[in-house]
This record gives sequence, C-alpha cells and structure tokens, in this order.
Amino acid sequence: MVEKNIAALVVPSGDPHQSEYMADFWQARQWLTGFTGSAGTAVVTKDAAILWTDFRYWIQAASQIGTSDFELFKQGEPGVPAFEAWLYQTLSSGDIIAMDGKIVSAANVKKYKKVFTEKGMTLATDVDLIADIWTDRPPMPASRAWMLSDTYAGKTRLEKLDQIRSAMAKTGANTHLMTTLDDIAWTFNLRGEDVRNTPVNLAFALVTLDRAILFINPSKVDGKLVSAFGQDNIELLPYTRVEEILGSLGQETRIRLDPDFVGYAFYQAVDPKVWIIEKINPATELKAVKNETEINHMRQTAIKDGVAMVNFLHWIENRTDSAQVSEMSVAKTLFDFRKQQLDFYNNSFDPIMAYGEHSAMCHYSATPESDVPLKREGMFLNDSGGNYLTGTTDITRTLNLGTPAKQEIKDYTLVLKGHICVASALFPEGTKGFQIDTLARQFLWKEGMNFGHGTGHGVGFFLCVHEGPAKISPFPIDVELKKGMLLTNEPGLYREGRYGIRLENMILVVKDRKTEFGQFMKFENMTLCHFETSMVDRELLCQKEIDYLNTYHQQVYERLSPVLDPQVAAWLKKKTAPI
Amino acid sequence: MVEKNIAALVVPSGDPHQSEYMADFWQARQWLTGFTGSAGTAVVTKDAAILWTDFRYWIQAASQIGTSDFELFKQGEPGVPAFEAWLYQTLSSGDIIAMDGKIVSAANVKKYKKVFTEKGMTLATDVDLIADIWTDRPPMPASRAWMLSDTYAGKTRLEKLDQIRSAMAKTGANTHLMTTLDDIAWTFNLRGEDVRNTPVNLAFALVTLDRAILFINPSKVDGKLVSAFGQDNIELLPYTRVEEILGSLGQETRIRLDPDFVGYAFYQAVDPKVWIIEKINPATELKAVKNETEINHMRQTAIKDGVAMVNFLHWIENRTDSAQVSEMSVAKTLFDFRKQQLDFYNNSFDPIMAYGEHSAMCHYSATPESDVPLKREGMFLNDSGGNYLTGTTDITRTLNLGTPAKQEIKDYTLVLKGHICVASALFPEGTKGFQIDTLARQFLWKEGMNFGHGTGHGVGFFLCVHEGPAKISPFPIDVELKKGMLLTNEPGLYREGRYGIRLENMILVVKDRKTEFGQFMKFENMTLCHFETSMVDRELLCQKEIDYLNTYHQQVYERLSPVLDPQVAAWLKKKTAPI
Repeated sequence: MVEKNIAALVVPSGDPHQSEYMADFWQARQWLTGFTGSAGTAVVTKDAAILWTDFRYWIQAASQIGTSDFELFKQGEPGVPAFEAWLYQTLSSGDIIAMDGKIVSAANVKKYKKVFTEKGMTLATDVDLIADIWTDRPPMPASRAWMLSDTYAGKTRLEKLDQIRSAMAKTGANTHLMTTLDDIAWTFNLRGEDVRNTPVNLAFALVTLDRAILFINPSKVDGKLVSAFGQDNIELLPYTRVEEILGSLGQETRIRLDPDFVGYAFYQAVDPKVWIIEKINPATELKAVKNETEINHMRQTAIKDGVAMVNFLHWIENRTDSAQVSEMSVAKTLFDFRKQQLDFYNNSFDPIMAYGEHSAMCHYSATPESDVPLKREGMFLNDSGGNYLTGTTDITRTLNLGTPAKQEIKDYTLVLKGHICVASALFPEGTKGFQIDTLARQFLWKEGMNFGHGTGHGVGFFLCVHEGPAKISPFPIDVELKKGMLLTNEPGLYREGRYGIRLENMILVVKDRKTEFGQFMKFENMTLCHFETSMVDRELLCQKEIDYLNTYHQQVYERLSPVLDPQVAAWLKKKTAPI
Repeated sequence: MVEKNIAALVVPSGDPHQSEYMADFWQARQWLTGFTGSAGTAVVTKDAAILWTDFRYWIQAASQIGTSDFELFKQGEPGVPAFEAWLYQTLSSGDIIAMDGKIVSAANVKKYKKVFTEKGMTLATDVDLIADIWTDRPPMPASRAWMLSDTYAGKTRLEKLDQIRSAMAKTGANTHLMTTLDDIAWTFNLRGEDVRNTPVNLAFALVTLDRAILFINPSKVDGKLVSAFGQDNIELLPYTRVEEILGSLGQETRIRLDPDFVGYAFYQAVDPKVWIIEKINPATELKAVKNETEINHMRQTAIKDGVAMVNFLHWIENRTDSAQVSEMSVAKTLFDFRKQQLDFYNNSFDPIMAYGEHSAMCHYSATPESDVPLKREGMFLNDSGGNYLTGTTDITRTLNLGTPAKQEIKDYTLVLKGHICVASALFPEGTKGFQIDTLARQFLWKEGMNFGHGTGHGVGFFLCVHEGPAKISPFPIDVELKKGMLLTNEPGLYREGRYGIRLENMILVVKDRKTEFGQFMKFENMTLCHFETSMVDRELLCQKEIDYLNTYHQQVYERLSPVLDPQVAAWLKKKTAPI
C-alpha cells in the first residue's frame, strides 16, 4: 500500500460473477480476516483494520477475528457507519482507495465513486494487491463442463438464445454481456462443479443478434462439447479474454448488461463510445419462468425428495437409542436418503441441521466445534435441499424430539397459519412478492412477533437454490409473480437462545380463475412432506385452515405411499391423519 | 412552432410547484384540449394533435375532445406508447421538442432528455409557446396570505426551520430549495386560498443554515405579516425572483432539493458549479409526523366532522319525499352541516357524491350534465372532507337508499373485513405502507375480486388532503409508517355499470407494546362515524371482527351523542347497536 501510495484497501466478498456462493479462489476477504461467513467487507488503512458484517454473523465474526488485528464493525447497528461512509469520514482529500474492480458490481463502484469524489478522494479499481501477496491462494476451479440434455432442460440452447435475442432487440440492444454463472448455465444448457453445491461453470458470455461467444477455460471443455457448440454456431474463447473482446466492440454496438451483476472492470472494459443499455439480463427473467418440461420434472422431483424426507423423518423418530446421532451425522443420513433417489446429483446447499437453541439461528451451520448430539427432547429444525437432474429442491421442517411445550405448539401453529395463508392465496395477475409477504406474517404480528428473513425466494431448475429476480419479501422487489415461477414459502419464528421454527415448501405460480376483476393466480405446492400435527393447536386454526392441512396431508400420503417402504408408508398414514 | 423550428410541442398538466390541484392559471393543457381531467399530456406536431390520459379519464376525455382536432391515446393500454416513446418513434434526428421546463419536474425532464438524446433530438425547455398565444389566460391567483396561529400549528416557524436545518446539515447541505406549496405553508405556518380547496399560497422558499427567503407576491402580504417575518429573520422577495437568486448562489453552496418536485427550470437555474444534493424535502418528512398539538386538535376534529357526517346521514335517511335531492344538492347539504362546526374553513376537496352506477367510478365528480336525483333505492357512495383550522378530514361511507341486494351485502362485508383488518393491525416498527396494503385486499382476492386504487394516503394538518410521503398502496413506496403519521384506510370494490363501495376512515400511527421481537405499532381511528350494519353479513365475520365493529360503534356513539341533537343521537344509538 505504501509503495503504491494507497491510503485504504477495501476487500469485499465477491467474485467476477457476483455469485452468492463463491469458489475458494475468491475467498480473499476470508483469507485476510479469518472470518468465514458469506458476507462482509474488510478495510485496511495505515492505522486501522476493520471488518464489516451484518447481524447474521456478528457472533461468528467476533470469535473468528478474535486474535487478529481486525476490529469488528456491526453493519446495520445504529451509529455504525457503512464502510464507504467511514472512509469518507476518516480519509482526506487526495487519498487513494483501492478495490478490485473485477469483483465489485459496476452499480456499487459508481455509488462509492460518487461518495469519494465528493471529498476529492480517488477510488482505484485496477489495483489487485491481494493477488500479489496471497501466496497460498487456492487454484481456479476447473471442473469438467457437461451438457444438460434437452429432455431435462425442455428447451435447446438455440431456442433460449432466440428468446434472449428477442428481448435484446426490444430494448434496442444488438449485444449482451452475461457474467452471472447461472444465467450462462441456463442459456447454454451447461452444467459443472466449479462452485460447491451449485452446478455451474466459470464463464462469461457475449451474445449478439447472430453470434454467441462463451468465454470458458479450454481445459474444461471436451471435444464432444466443442463440436456441439460449433454446430450451434457458438464460439469458444478462453475465460481470460472477455475484457479484451469487450474493448474491441465496434461503435455501432449497443450492449445490454445488468450493472448490479456485472463487475466494474468489465463494465469499464467496454469502449466508452459504445452505447450501454443497463437492464436486467433477459436470461434472469426467462429462466425464472419454468417451462412445461421443467415443471413436469419438478412434480416428479417433489415425490422423490418427499420420499427422502419422509424416510429421514421416520428414521429420526424411530432411531434406536444406540445410534450416534448429531447435527452433522444426520446431515449425512439425509444426504444418503436423497442419494437413493433417481437423478440425484448433490445437495443444493449445505444443510442446516439445527438442534435446540441452534435452531434459533436462521443461518446456523454445524461445525465440528458446534456439533451436538440429538437427544430425545427439544426442537430440531432441518433445512435442506437436493439438486437433481430433474430440478432443485429446498424444504424445511421443524419438530420436537420429545414432547413439545405449550408455547412451542402455539408458535408452530402461528407459523403454520402464515404458511397456509400464502400456500392457499388467490391473487390478481401482476401481484408482486412483497404484496404476498404480509400474508405470512400477519398472525405473528397480531401477537407481537415477527421473523427476520424473507418469506420466500426463487429456486432454479437444477441450478441455484436462491434464484432471482422474484422474491416474497418485505423488501420491495418490483417483479411480478408470473405463471411458472418457482418460489419457496418459508415463514419462521426464532426465540434467541431457545428455539426456532421454520416451515418451508416450494410453490409454483399457476393460473386460477378469470373474473370481471381480471385474471387471478394461485400457488401449487411443489413439496410433498407432512407437517407435525402433534405441534398444531387446532383451536388456533379456522375451518378453512384445517381443511387445507388435511387436504395437503392426504395428497402427501397418496403421492408418496406407493413408492415408500410399506412400514414407512404405514407410519406416514398416521402422521398425515386428519386433525 | 414553425417560426421557432419546433417539431413537437408537449403540454403536460403541471404548475411550477408540482401540485396535485392547480390554479386555473396553469390549466394550459385543459385550455388547449378542452379536457378538464386532472392528469393528461397533450402533444402537437405538424401532422398530429394527441392527448394522453390514464384509464380514469378515458371516457371523459373522449367526450370532451370530441369536436376538436385532438386524438385520444389511452395511456397504459397495451400497445399504446408513452408520449416520449411516441415522439421517439415519430420524429427524426435533429428535431426540436418544446416543453415548458418550469412545470415539469427535473427528474422527468432528465428522463425525457435521455430518451430524445439517444436519437439525436433536442428537448428545449425554455420555450413557453402557450404563454404567447393564450390570450384569455386566467390571472395568477392572488389571495391574501395569513398566519396559522401556533396554538393550531403546535410549533413555531423558527422551531420548524431549526428541524429543517438539522436535516439539511445531516446530508451536508447548507441551502435548501422548496417549491412545494404545502411544505412551504407548513414550514412558515402560512395559509391562503391560491388553490381551490387547498389552503396554500403560491411561493418558493430558500433556506440556508442561518437565513430564509420566502418568494411571494408582495401584494399577498400585509404589514403585520411583513413585520412578523422580519422578527423571525425571514426575508421576503417577489415570487418571480427565485430563478435569479438561484443563479447567484456562491460556489460554496451545497443545495438540497427534491428533483421529483422541483421544476427543471429552477433546477437548471442553479449555477452548475453548485453541488446539488438530491433528496426529499425535510419538510415533507417532518410535516407527515403530526405533533402532539396537531394530534389533540385532530381528535376534536374527528368529533366535529363525525357530527356533521352523522347529521348528514340522518338527514339522508329521514328526508321528506318532497325534498329535491340530487348528487349535487346533497354535496351542498353536507357542506352546510360541516359549516356549522367550529373552526371549519372549507371542503378539503370536491366531494364525490356518487349515486347508483356513478358509485362504480372511483373518481366520479357530479356535473350539471351528470347529476341525478337520489331515489329511495340503490347504492350511494359519498367521499368528502373538510378543512378545519384544527385539521383536515377525509371520509367515505356507502349505503343503500332502499333495501340492499344479497350481493351488495356480501361485497360491503368483504370490503369492511379489509377495512377492519387494517384498522386493527399490529405491525413492527419500520413496516411500510405496501406491507399493510395486502391486509385490506386479501378477503376480496379470495373471491377473485380487487380494487384499482391504493388503500390509503397521507393527510395534511389543515393542508392537502393527499399528503406524502407515506401511502398504503401496492406501489412500493419506501417510507416507514412512523408514530404520528396520519393516513386513510379506504378499501373499496367497484362493479362497472352497477355500483361501487368504499369505506374510509382516517387512522393515526401510534405505539403499541414492545416485545422480544421489538417495538410494535398500531392505528388509532381518527374518524368517528358509523358503518351500515344493515349491509353487514354477520356470517362472513369472525368473532374478532364482530367485536371490533361493536367496540368502534360504541365509541362513535359515546363520543358523538353528547354533542348531537337528541333526536339524531337516538337515531345513532340504533345505527350503532351491537350486531
């Protein structure tokens, strides 16, 4: 820093694809600070070393940076400035701040530049100090890339490129830059293992109205792939050449890109004379709406994943006393149940197996240090999912391993009421997720309770378990819930130091009736697994809610029992008995 | 246009203050097209004359422009381009488009410029063709300005300026431009009659950290006012001098202004070397949170306005057959009932007195041509409000003048369920209006129904009946519902060509309990008037809803009966009897 006259180095969490889950190669912030959480920003100046992270990670970060020189700033706490505001306050006019422009979005860099420029400070985005000093940096991921068959994907690469090109043309674009790995995987029907639990490949893509270039490490692509792409008129170039090609675009280019997801370095690489159209990627919008083939696969996947879950819950309840079960071991058990299912590929995320007070932490992840045995009492929250060739799943169930207390039953019932209210909602076409979110919270609010996460997120098809652009959340994301969108419905309740509850199904947006007030939509449940009727206080439910629960349970039993072991089916019959 | 080489003239609805209701002086679009609705944009080119307006006015506009050369473009209809898109498509590179930069917000002009520049067209904002040719233009309003006593306002001008200056300083501003008339009226505790039904004065204001300038026509201000302002160190300058003063600001100026509400001409008038901080006006945020004095006044106003409303509804039900009553005449009758109340000043808006199928039009306004007599049958929706020195009111009630049909009762009950759900909601501190909106709609949605307006809007204190920044609406306005905010709660249902229902009270945000999940908020009803129990289907209500209605009715009776005529009180006793 002294050599390069840099007053502050900013090391955020990020990769050149703005991924939620990143390969180790880009875990620079973790390497620098020792903090392993998924979100945080480190800042180093002459006099200070500070780590910002949000409330989810305050305890973990404090413990992990304990012996280092880093100080923890609790992001979001009243009086704690954001890192850019802190730099604005602390540094002086003329100072240079360095940040790797590859891993921070163009939108964020522009925002930071505006703040710093106001005080005469400079943001340098072309300095990567970390690359020079991180000597034991893990290698770039280099998994083999492979084709997802059209029989799973439902649409060919060329059909998808056609859709993308129509969307481009509508906004006057003749070129489109994609940096987001799931959009690229979806568009090219390509899968890989470059990111843990997310079947994607490191790549960039540039689509014009008649060509497409995929920037991918040549060692990842075998001859069969090369020839398949050749047939589809898709050019392959090395991953590292994207900036050079962006710099050589002709002035007649009108490039569409999403500044929230394109790294600043790539945005800057585009010739300044080229017209940039800032808009969401067409693939982001297109892949969120599942096609008929995908939907049919997912209906089957619901059965497979339901069987794995019911086997797991049956095993939990009937395990012998001698069985050594802990949070970490049951994660393995559930994985094994899923692995028995056809077309299973991997977990869709690291499962949250949270026993007792651990269940009160929304983002708990058991480690050898935190792992505890599961006793014959207490609350157990399990949130997990599988990636199948036939779709991605995400499910949460909560149960008491002994006899539930009165308050646990009341809390479970209130969370279930919210879950049912969303699942059985009817809503006008054009409704957005933030309008649905309140349905899940209203019964908790009435009792002075709430939960600190969104009600639901989009889910990919054999892709990311968290997929944009739609959400069901109090955060006002201006995206309509369209027919074919796959989301989760997962209200919860967390009593710190005691227990947490979350009840999650996947739901698909489908059409309902058309009235004089327009087209109405509803949700179809895409998860088949019983809830714990032993934790339901019938008195707190209205008749319609009771009917919903009984109908759902009947459906769970009817669809799963034919493929379950008879003994497990008999157990499920009891678990799904009408209340 | 030919003389000045202008290819297209755009005449939007607007004044230099971005007012919702405007003085006649600025009704240029109405003068040009003949269309009297509140929102619309006229465009004139060599070959075309087009009026854009939204769905509320399609029928009215078509009829009003009938014999003119204007063509109607139905704004929002699929396939109908926005006016800027139409100009983009129709005109050529090099063409000049003219628009009065005084009456269009800086934010909108910037947006239009971006579109036009893309095609090499120019937007000229300093040409006011209308001013030259509109020979019988009404005069500028020039009502007397007068002081609202601190005993009503609750805070002095200097206290309010202090609050504004603190807010300015927090964003690094040393100067602040206000163009919005209600913000100026609130800040300076000034009222007037320059705009129909809204007690404001035409003015601009410039606030620095130690001075304030009010730009107002000198003939509006008497000696007493001049000396009062002098004492408070507030300088008075003529209304027309604001641009000149903005142009003369020193380079050390950091001016805060809201580009959505400041006309482009004023934004442009600021010396380009001055740093502009684009942010909502502090006064907009401050005045939305009512102070204790205002709240106490409003609780009394609720009784006064409630008495007027109950007198009116009693009169409607008990009018003799010989009484000549029509939509327009009952508006006058209600006005007279309000006028009997202490501190009444004027209507807060033109009342909507909508009988029969007229009630299905949300924005119906009776004219001599549309006016119909009220019979002893059919639905009657009345939406009205008063401006009192002690606060502004807004209330809607719907009744059947004969015997309600089964469907009318069901519809009324479903709307009432939504109204009750909002009124009785508990919600965490920090909740925003769009999160509450769904509570009002969910019962209608379940039946495939909906209504096409927001659930509620902010209300001023003896100011605008529609006041920002908070709303209860599906439109995601990112503003928290803070303690002290006054809003409306007005779900509805409209069956085109048949009838409409709307049930509106004003509600105040107040604190409720604090739990382990944080501070919770609720609403206090600020409107006292019964609903029609004869239109309520008790079977569709749950016990909590029945309890709410009975408790509210008991409160209405207890607060109003002591000040009602005994005969009316006896009638109210029956109307508020428990169901």
